[in-house]
Parts: sequence; C-alpha cells; structure tokens
Amino acid sequence: MPARALPGFRDFYPDDTALRNHIFAVWRTVASRYGFEEYDGPPLEPLELYTQKSGPEIVGQLYHFRDRGDREVALRPEMTPTLARMVAARARALKKPIRWFSLPQLFRYERQQRGRLREHFQLNLDVIGEPGPLADAEVIAAAIDVARLLGLGPQDVRARVSDRQVLRALLLGAGVAEPSLGAAFAAIDKIEREPRDRLLTWLTEDGKLPAGVAQRALAVGDVKGLPAVQDAARKVPGGPAVVEPLVECVGALEAMGLSAFVDVDLCIVRGLAYYSGIVFELFDAQRNLRAICGGGRYDGLLAALGGADLPAVGFGMGDVVLGELLKARAVAPGAAGSLDAFLVAVTAEDTPAVLQLAHALRDRGGRVEFSLKEQSIAKQLKLASARGARFAVIIGPEERQRGGAVVRDLRRGEERAVSAAELAGDAVLGGR
Amino acid sequence: MPARALPGFRDFYPDDTALRNHIFAVWRTVASRYGFEEYDGPPLEPLELYTQKSGPEIVGQLYHFRDRGDREVALRPEMTPTLARMVAARARALKKPIRWFSLPQLFRYERQQRGRLREHFQLNLDVIGEPGPLADAEVIAAAIDVARLLGLGPQDVRARVSDRQVLRALLLGAGVAEPSLGAAFAAIDKIEREPRDRLLTWLTEDGKLPAGVAQRALAVGDVKGLPAVQDAARKVPGGPAVVEPLVECVGALEAMGLSAFVDVDLCIVRGLAYYSGIVFELFDAQRNLRAICGGGRYDGLLAALGGADLPAVGFGMGDVVLGELLKARAVAPGAAGSLDAFLVAVTAEDTPAVLQLAHALRDRGGRVEFSLKEQSIAKQLKLASARGARFAVIIGPEERQRGGAVVRDLRRGEERAVSAAELAGDAVLGGR
Repeated sequence: MPARALPGFRDFYPDDTALRNHIFAVWRTVASRYGFEEYDGPPLEPLELYTQKSGPEIVGQLYHFRDRGDREVALRPEMTPTLARMVAARARALKKPIRWFSLPQLFRYERQQRGRLREHFQLNLDVIGEPGPLADAEVIAAAIDVARLLGLGPQDVRARVSDRQVLRALLLGAGVAEPSLGAAFAAIDKIEREPRDRLLTWLTEDGKLPAGVAQRALAVGDVKGLPAVQDAARKVPGGPAVVEPLVECVGALEAMGLSAFVDVDLCIVRGLAYYSGIVFELFDAQRNLRAICGGGRYDGLLAALGGADLPAVGFGMGDVVLGELLKARAVAPGAAGSLDAFLVAVTAEDTPAVLQLAHALRDRGGRVEFSLKEQSIAKQLKLASARGARFAVIIGPEERQRGGAVVRDLRRGEERAVSAAELAGDAVLGGR
Repeated sequence: MPARALPGFRDFYPDDTALRNHIFAVWRTVASRYGFEEYDGPPLEPLELYTQKSGPEIVGQLYHFRDRGDREVALRPEMTPTLARMVAARARALKKPIRWFSLPQLFRYERQQRGRLREHFQLNLDVIGEPGPLADAEVIAAAIDVARLLGLGPQDVRARVSDRQVLRALLLGAGVAEPSLGAAFAAIDKIEREPRDRLLTWLTEDGKLPAGVAQRALAVGDVKGLPAVQDAARKVPGGPAVVEPLVECVGALEAMGLSAFVDVDLCIVRGLAYYSGIVFELFDAQRNLRAICGGGRYDGLLAALGGADLPAVGFGMGDVVLGELLKARAVAPGAAGSLDAFLVAVTAEDTPAVLQLAHALRDRGGRVEFSLKEQSIAKQLKLASARGARFAVIIGPEERQRGGAVVRDLRRGEERAVSAAELAGDAVLGGR
C-alpha cells in the first residue's frame, strides 16, 4: 500500500478537519450574513474552459488528461470559468445583482518546492451585475469580516486597496505611454519584492521607458493613503473623476466601521491581467505569510470567456495561509469536539439500558458514546477520559432498578446519583 | 466556452447546493451525536491504492491518468483505501475503537446510461478496532438516524440486515460445498432482480450445484425475520453460535428504539467480496429507488490492503438517492435561505446610515442586503421581495435625523416607525 498521499496533497486527520471545518463555517456564516448564496461546480471540467481564459500556457500548470471518451479534461485550477459558465446558462433568469459564493477545492500542478501544495480550498465570493463601487466595498467588507469572525483584528490583518484605473491615470500623467502601461504595472506589482534599482534597470531596458519616466512611474507605486492618492489624482487629466470610485468604496468601508483594517496602497496591482478597476489583497499585518486573499473588479472577463456581459467583482481566499495565521495567533479551535457523555454499563445486563439512554440523549442532540464491548468499569472510564467526555453516566443493576444512573463529572471529579427524571431533564445535557 | 459540465457531472446552483448542504448537515449532526470525528483525504490518489484491493479490472471504471511526475494516479472511486492508509500511518497512536466519518466526493468512469452520474458525495462512517456486534448495531443505528433526522420514518425507509456467517452456515447445512459458496452467495444476491428459474439454471450449470441443493440454497435467501433465521440456524451445525452476533445486533437496535426500521432478511448479501459478517442496506420502503446506503463488517480488509490488522464495520451512503427520496417525500428544505432584512436608502445621502446599520445587524448574525446602487424606493422594495426578505428597513433624511428607520414587514404588509434603540434591539432580528 502506498504509505502516503501524493506529493502536495493533504490527509486531513480529525484535528486538521476540525480546523478546516472551522474556517469553512466562518466563510459560510459571513457569506450568509451578506446575503450570498452558495453554489458549486464539478472539480473536473473541459480543459478548454481554462485555456480560453489563460491561453495554452496555463496547460503546463494544470492536472489535465484525456478521458476514455477522448475529452481533454482538467482538475479545476480556479472557479471563475465555472462561475461564468453557470451564470451564462441562466443569465436571464437570475435576479441581479447575483451574490454567489463557493468553497471549491482547487488544483495546480506546480513544481514541488518548499512544501508547496498542489491543492487548496478557496472561498470564492462574487457580486455579478453591479458596476458601482458599493459592490466593491461589499466584497472587501466580507473579506475583512471573515478575519474578524475568526478572531483577527486590525493588528493581525490588513486590507490593502488600490484601483487600476487610478494607477493608469497617474502613470499616463507621469509620462508613461499607453503601450508601456503593462510594463509599468508589472514593475509596480514587484515593488516590494525586488530592489528598486533592478526594477529601474528592467523598466529602461529595450527602450520600454525613458529613465526619468521610469523613476516617476515607480514613484506612483509608492503613493499610500487616500488623501495622497486624491492629491496625486488632482494633478493629472481626468484624475478627480477617475479617483471617485475608490473614494466611494473607502467611504463605504468607513461607514461600515471597518476603516481600521483598510490601507489605500497603489503598489497593489494583482498580477493577473483581467482586473479592470478596484483591486485588493488581505495580508497578515507582519507580512510573514503570503496573501490571505486577493480580488477585485473584472468587468470584461465574463463576456471575454463567452459568458454573459455583466460587470463583476469578487475575491478568492485560500484555507492554507488562513490556517497558518490562526495557529500563529492562537485563535485556531481546539481539538475536534469532545463528548457530552460516555455511558458505562456495570454488567452485561445493563447494556440495553445504556443503549436506550444513549439513544434518548442523542435524539436530544447530545454527543454520546459507550463501550462497544463488555469490559471493566475502570477501562470504560479510561476510554471516557480519552474521548474528553464531560460526564460519565454509570448504570448498574441498582441504577437500573430505580431507573436512574450515577453521573460523574469528569472535570470536577464529583459524582452523584440522579433519577430517571433528571436524566430526561438537564442532568447530562444541561451544561452544553 | 463549453456550454455545460462534463457528462455525468453536476452543476450545483444555489437551490441544489441548499439541498446538498442540508444532507451534509444532517450527516455531520448524526455522526457527531454518535461521537464520530470527521476526516478527509485527497480526491486524487496513487492508482495502486485501488488496484491492490480490487485488482486490475477496477482500472476500467476509474478516472485515472499519468501525471507529469510519471505517477499513475486516479480520482478516488471509494474512501476505504484512503481510510486504511491513514489509519495504518497512526495505528498505534489512535485510541481504539476509532470512530471516524468522512463526506468525500467519489468518481467512477462508468459508461453513461440513463443519466447515471460519474460523481457523487458519500457519507462514509466506520468503527475500527472493535469486533463485537454492538459496533455493527452502532453504525446501522447511525444510518437509520440519518433518515430519521431528515424527516423519514419506518414507512419511508427500511434497514435490511443479514449476516454472511449465518448465510454461510445455512448454505453449508443445505448441502452447498465450500467451493460453491461464492456461486450461492452470488445467486442469492440477485434473488430480487432475476427470475427464480434463471437463477436455478445458472446455479446448476457447469456442475456448480446439484438441482436439489440449488433449490435449498435459494430457499436460504428467502428466510426473513429474526425468529425464522434463528429457527433455521438451530438445525445446522454450529448454527446457534453463529447466529448470536446477529441476535445481539438486532437486540441492540431494539434497545435503541429503532426496531420499527429493521428487517432481518437473508437475501441481503452485498456483492463485494470483502464483507465478513453482518451486512445491511437501507432502501426506500416502496423500493422504487436504488439502495440509500450499504455496508457491513469487513474484518480482514484493512490488513489485506497492507494496513493495520484491525476489525472494522461501516457503511457508505450517497447523496443522490437520498436527495431523490427527500424530494419525493416532500421533506427537502425550501429554497436557499432568505434575508432577514433588506435595507432601503431613500436618498443617496442615506447610504452611509444604511451601510452602518447593515453592518451592525450583520455583526449580530443577521442576514442583510441593500441596494448596491442608487435607485428608486420602489425598485429597492422589489429587490427586497425578490430576495425573500422578511423586513424592509427604510432610512430617509427624517429617519436619519431621529436615528431610527421605518420597518416594513414584507409578509404582513404592515409598517411602523422604529427608534434607534429598537433597531439595536429586537425590531429586525427578534423574530429569527
């Protein structure tokens, strides 16, 4: 038997699953509070769903193969193409704005390095059909609220927000010619990861930009804070109008009481080419980890994919960095849930009474276990402790006769005889 | 863009996802009440994990391919080999009995027929490390309790229970020779799907069984009800001992108050060869659908897979038949959850107050939406109705001045002015 999972794939033992389910529950709770509805698609899709958006070079990063029906198929690397297909199929019937979210497992065949995973789970949350900046604010707020509900504050998590339209206007104002905008975006995207002189060299190579323009272009990526962005915008043609959506979006986040989390920062570009307006990322405040979440507005993408021509804004938030952060901040949940009660049969004849009580407690929502074989009381109590049970409920011939049990509180070490009425009442499940 | 999912794969629109999540929630609730902990493994596994158990012929039914690391891999068709691997890796550290469950999506490349799916979700629930029949009763009870918690009663769902050891003893007693037991099992397995004379012909072909023995062998498959099984067992060598586990298991289900769901029926064999004792299936009572669930004891399997030598009992329960049954019995949940409140801004200046209130209500767990663009009150109220909101909360300049709102009950059609204190209290979320 192969001794382990494939490289880059995770086995989820119960404690790992408990952490994952905790993150999933928070994702679902926040999405639900914002009125988003959950959807899902197949983990296996036609390969062309992805090549169409990202070109044939994406194939090198996919788990793809030819199935026996001679179809080129791939394990989904992202959710947006599936979303585009599903929305397109019912574009007329769906009430706009569409507020949908999903929790897909996604797959990438990246060369294995530093324990990089080849799968992860990702919250995808999108508003489709609304071009205005309140929609952008809504999805950024949802991303921040995931962090808040997980117990993370502004000292743990920062939302960095930019707007590609603003960046574009400022770069044009700095003298960057239209054909060189892509290069300037790419350099600003790397501003925090590469030395400044290397970026300048790259920007001035092959006649991309004159040296002075390259300097000014990189300086645009240094602008931080909404007032500074507004100042800069006032000085370029069309600037005051182009900065309005960002101002409205940040204002809405302030009205929602979330401004303590928000930094306006023009160095946020989001590498992918399809973003068309506001973009944002969530990071741990110490910046030790990769981004928690990234997203933005992608108004032309759904139509470009052959779907409905609807504006859209959304984000993807993975489970891996979030899980690392929760562990580092010690706000991860404890071990997988423990038992309310472990029922102990003193003799074999007491087993039917144990089974009956176990089932009655379970029917009332209790989490209950008992020994599946005849063994000593000591061994049963040991198993009760190993399972983290709150109470041991002991039934022997005497207890059976009076219809009650002895309830031992395994935390406090106290025990007392309880009646049948108390068992049917709060004696065991009352403290939940 | 490909217009639809691959054949045999499902898109889950919000209503479909709501049904699926309802089933998942019930699966998790019941498993948790029984003290089971959730685990998961990768959807992609080494191919040999499956060929080892089922032989090379399984390959024809798998989604399998060679990845770029030159590994033969497959989308998981079942969970047990992954479970065996994970338990083997920590066999010593895990406290026995191990009570684990999982909700994997499973994949089969079956030839497409009658809309058969190539993927489904399945609750896998297993007790590992306990050979006694209370463990069998525990997993059967959990399967029945899933049906109960979904709103299905004994008139909707039947659990049919048998025991291969009993079947074996009775077949030997009926004159079936040891080497022909497999053929007799296979014939009894088909007893409800094939005409009796065809089974007899097949059983007597190629010298498998003499005609009289074949008749008696099939008659063993007709035995129904525990008393009749006990009667039959008394008449064969070793019968009274071999029937004991089944008697204990059925007795335990009775003590749990579940006997109304249970039929002992020796025609239940479970085709797969690895079952070693008690076997069971859940069916819809009208038997219009395929089995809801199937499982049993597989004591030798984990060791045979190269894992730990531990006895085990468990079942798999798919989401598809269960979903069909819930719809047929009209106990499926309604549409995806609706909103608590839709907030309406009378003028653009009211939007910050709407945002602030929306966020305050969301922080208290409310499900809240508002218009993401400036539009007429009528259009906002229309969207509120389309989203199924319970209340429309209207904020205009006057309401803003006094810090309150007008709350319209969209079910009753009544509206009233409420104060800020009422908004912070129960005015909107009180009826949840």
